[in-house]
Amino acid sequence: MGSSSSFSSSSKLLFRQLFEKESSTFTYLLADVSHQLWYLIDPVDKTVDRDLQLIDELGLKLIYAMNTHVHADHVTGTGLLKTKLPGVKSVCVTYVTGEEADQPNQEWLLPGMLYSSVVVGGLTFRVEALINSTSLYIHRQIFTLPEDTLIYPAHDYKGFEVSTVGEEMQHNPRLTKDKETFKTIMSNLNLSYPKMIDVAVPANMVCGLQDVPSQAN
Amino acid sequence: MGSSSSFSSSSKLLFRQLFEKESSTFTYLLADVSHQLWYLIDPVDKTVDRDLQLIDELGLKLIYAMNTHVHADHVTGTGLLKTKLPGVKSVCVTYVTGEEADQPNQEWLLPGMLYSSVVVGGLTFRVEALINSTSLYIHRQIFTLPEDTLIYPAHDYKGFEVSTVGEEMQHNPRLTKDKETFKTIMSNLNLSYPKMIDVAVPANMVCGLQDVPSQAN
Repeated sequence: MGSSSSFSSSSKLLFRQLFEKESSTFTYLLADVSHQLWYLIDPVDKTVDRDLQLIDELGLKLIYAMNTHVHADHVTGTGLLKTKLPGVKSVCVTYVTGEEADQPNQEWLLPGMLYSSVVVGGLTFRVEALINSTSLYIHRQIFTLPEDTLIYPAHDYKGFEVSTVGEEMQHNPRLTKDKETFKTIMSNLNLSYPKMIDVAVPANMVCGLQDVPSQAN
Repeated sequence: MGSSSSFSSSSKLLFRQLFEKESSTFTYLLADVSHQLWYLIDPVDKTVDRDLQLIDELGLKLIYAMNTHVHADHVTGTGLLKTKLPGVKSVCVTYVTGEEADQPNQEWLLPGMLYSSVVVGGLTFRVEALINSTSLYIHRQIFTLPEDTLIYPAHDYKGFEVSTVGEEMQHNPRLTKDKETFKTIMSNLNLSYPKMIDVAVPANMVCGLQDVPSQAN
C-alpha cells in the first residue's frame, strides 16, 4: 500500500496524519476526492477545532467520524464533531451496540470483523482493530502483507509516524519473539493505571456522544 | 513535488519525518537509495539514539547531518552523531564559517543562497533558510511554486505535519496579509524569551560540535 500526503484538486486521495501531543494520539483525515467520501479517524476532543479548521480550509465535507478502538487515554472528538457539524455520521467498531453509532458503511465496517478496510482512491486502508489480538494474529494477518505495506499507528510516544511491515517483522521488539515470549512480555509490562481511563472509556463506549442532544445523534 | 513515506528496496527515495515533542522540532531522514546519499536534517540531541536506531534498522549509512538554521530551542544532534558515527559529515547553512562544518556539498548548499535544493530520487527538496526573509521573499520564492508542492515545516505546535503551497497561500494567517501588515504582526508578536536560546545558539553556531574531540571534527 502506498499513499501520498499531498492534496491537489486532481488527486483522488487526500491523506493527512495529525498528532495530539498530550495523549500521543494520531488522528487521520482520509478522503476519496472522486467519490466525495471523507473520514476522520480517531479524532480527539481537544483537537476538534484544529481538525474542523483543516477540513474547512481544504474545502471538505466530512461524512464519517470513525473510532477504531475504545480509547483509554482521551475522549473521542466524535461528540463535539456532531454538535458542530450535525451531518457527520459516527462510526465505531463493534463495541458499540446501541444507538450512539450511526449506520456503519457495511462495505467497510462489518460487525465481528477483526479489521476493516477503507478503499480510497484505488488504495486499500485497513483499520486493524486488534480485539482478541495475539502475536499469532499479527503474524497471520499483518506479517503476510507485502513488506513495503505502510503501517500508520494509532499512537506513538517516540516521534515516529510511520513504519512498514518489513521493518516490524525484523525489528519490532515484541513481535519478533515467539508467542509464549510475547505473552510473557505483555503480561509483565506492569503499566501504570491510565490517568484518563475512568472518564474516557465510558464516554468512548457511546462514541463521545454523552453530552450531545438526542436530535444530533 | 510529491513524496512517498514508504521504504522498499525497489524505491529510489526514502523519506521519514520524525518529531521531538519537547521543542516541537521535526527531523527529516532523506535518502537517495540509488546514489547511496543519506541526509539527516535538523537532528535534535535528545533524539539522536532514536534516529540512530532507525538508521540502523533501515540498513542505511548516514553521510550528512544537516542543519537548516541556528536553532534557538534545542541543541542540534550533529555533535553526538559525529561521536557515535565518526564518518558523518556536518553540513550547516552559511552562518558557520569555521572548521566546524565539513565540506558542504556545493551542488546543493551554496554560501549566500537563500535556499538549498536536494535532488533525491528524481524529486527536488528545497531547504528554505529564511535568512533576511520577508513576506515579499515568501511570496516570490514559495508562492510561485505549483500549488500542490508539499511544505514540510521545521516546527509545528498544533499537530500538523505537512501543508501545501496552495493551502498556505489561501489560509496562512500571516502570509495572506500585505507586506506592511505582515511586518506589524511579526513586530507585535511579543514572544517570550526562548528558554534554551543561551545554551542552544552558541552550541549550534558550531554545529553542536562544542564537546566533540577534534579528531572527530
